[in-house]
Amino acid sequence: MKILVTGAAGFIASNLIPRLLNRGDVVAGADNFFLGKREYVVQHERFAFHELDLLELDRVVALMEEFQPDRIWHLAANSDISFGTKYTDFDLKGGTLVTYNVLEAMRRTGVKEIVFSSSGAVYGEPAVMPTPEDYGPILPISLYAASKVACETLITAFAHNYDITAWIYRFGNVVGPNPTHGVIHDFVLRLKDEPAKLVVLGDGSQAKPYVHVEDTLDGMEFGLEHAKEHVNVYNLAVDDQTSVRQITDWTIEAMGIDRAKIDVQYGDSPRGWRGDVPYVKLDTRRMIALGWTPKLNSNEAVKRTIAEVVEQFTR
Amino acid sequence: MKILVTGAAGFIASNLIPRLLNRGDVVAGADNFFLGKREYVVQHERFAFHELDLLELDRVVALMEEFQPDRIWHLAANSDISFGTKYTDFDLKGGTLVTYNVLEAMRRTGVKEIVFSSSGAVYGEPAVMPTPEDYGPILPISLYAASKVACETLITAFAHNYDITAWIYRFGNVVGPNPTHGVIHDFVLRLKDEPAKLVVLGDGSQAKPYVHVEDTLDGMEFGLEHAKEHVNVYNLAVDDQTSVRQITDWTIEAMGIDRAKIDVQYGDSPRGWRGDVPYVKLDTRRMIALGWTPKLNSNEAVKRTIAEVVEQFTR
Repeated sequence: MKILVTGAAGFIASNLIPRLLNRGDVVAGADNFFLGKREYVVQHERFAFHELDLLELDRVVALMEEFQPDRIWHLAANSDISFGTKYTDFDLKGGTLVTYNVLEAMRRTGVKEIVFSSSGAVYGEPAVMPTPEDYGPILPISLYAASKVACETLITAFAHNYDITAWIYRFGNVVGPNPTHGVIHDFVLRLKDEPAKLVVLGDGSQAKPYVHVEDTLDGMEFGLEHAKEHVNVYNLAVDDQTSVRQITDWTIEAMGIDRAKIDVQYGDSPRGWRGDVPYVKLDTRRMIALGWTPKLNSNEAVKRTIAEVVEQFTR
Repeated sequence: MKILVTGAAGFIASNLIPRLLNRGDVVAGADNFFLGKREYVVQHERFAFHELDLLELDRVVALMEEFQPDRIWHLAANSDISFGTKYTDFDLKGGTLVTYNVLEAMRRTGVKEIVFSSSGAVYGEPAVMPTPEDYGPILPISLYAASKVACETLITAFAHNYDITAWIYRFGNVVGPNPTHGVIHDFVLRLKDEPAKLVVLGDGSQAKPYVHVEDTLDGMEFGLEHAKEHVNVYNLAVDDQTSVRQITDWTIEAMGIDRAKIDVQYGDSPRGWRGDVPYVKLDTRRMIALGWTPKLNSNEAVKRTIAEVVEQFTR
């Protein structure tokens, strides 16, 4: 297959692309290095990297026209939610407008399949937990989540009108090697820099389902094979949760820092930042019914990722 | 109160503004005359009209800064759904980006209340009918509806983060005097032009709840008084439906045209255009529980509107 990956220098894509290449796919990737990192760009004879900004519709169209992909993995996004609280048009541009451009380029060039990384954040602070895919009303509380909903609905409308098939995955917190941001990434880098002090956003009670990126990609590929609706919407998560306090303790331990010699400063409120949803529990029964379960639970995913990220950034 | 109305030369706003003025409000209105009409602009000493495009954020900010409204009725939109199937960025710009600009201007200037005209189209082709407000998953089938969802979620995110109170109404088909488009408007103008022939989009079996604009505005104002959540989401419709075939017959009759002398040509499929939802039934129990019911049912609203529009456009 010929596959185009957006956000190709980002966290999830840099874990995905080697898998696709191992399977024999021909892969093209695009990234503007806003969050993505040059050192995460895969080097391979069957992989072509394009540095471009997806806000430039003409360049997106030209890339698809030339490459003629069978499928797009649209992973480009502002995944650092707190950005969107500083610049209110950040997610509108980097999420909504970029996704419109990808879909419009697909329409113009006849590309028929899209895989999209959405988020459990679309549910806002839901009255039902674990939250199922058909939960409503959809009242997101961050501009990041508002943009994810906008992207989802652009995808469903394009799917209906232009005969495109879509797989939309609403993620828990995805963790693993090659992070560009996120709690484990931030803790490891800050402790490496200053081992005697750690400032934690929020009071540490925040608890979310952490999914390892390998499980995430397994689940996404399983869905591609087995979910055959025109528009397929699935929560992709694990059933348990890990608290930020737990992540704090495990990271300090993995860094080999003496707990007695570090000043850990927690915030006053559970919310890590404006628009943060402190407690998340996603109903995973739809993926289970399809036949897929993750290999690692949340605590296992977090522990493995801490080890991987400590190895990657401090050795 | 000081109230800013967007889409001020449009169908709903031109019916709303006289009500606000009668109540003693000081009103400002903005419109770019894309769908709105110059002859619908209200003339009154307490009403100031501003010709501007809401895509120009600086001008929207300047207007709010100067006028300092207590509340925005954000009614500007592409309400002619079929446009969005011709130009795929039409609703993105005229709906989503415009609504972002209104919200961002509210944030910058401290305006705290927004009333928004959404649509029952957000539900796409739902598995549950009548469709309640908490129906999910939200999978719209038109770019118009996708944009309405995007606007709703921008509103909920801004409401959460910047202490804005919002009333979101998901309309049935609103009808009444001063139309700018829509089935009754189109039929009357076409029959006036050519009384011997009428081409109908779709096979005429489409059936939707038609709500008179006076009932719509009554309901919106009732909600403003009685719904006190931070974000209030209500279907605003009637329980019965009227078919396009019925509207066709009643309009021909009201125009005084002999049924035997007119060639009415229906389409082959129920869908009037790409992205049209042919059968709509909205669950209205939430508004009823709040204490409000419409005065006219769907057939009554259609008949009264046909009389009003024939009067307005042919006398």
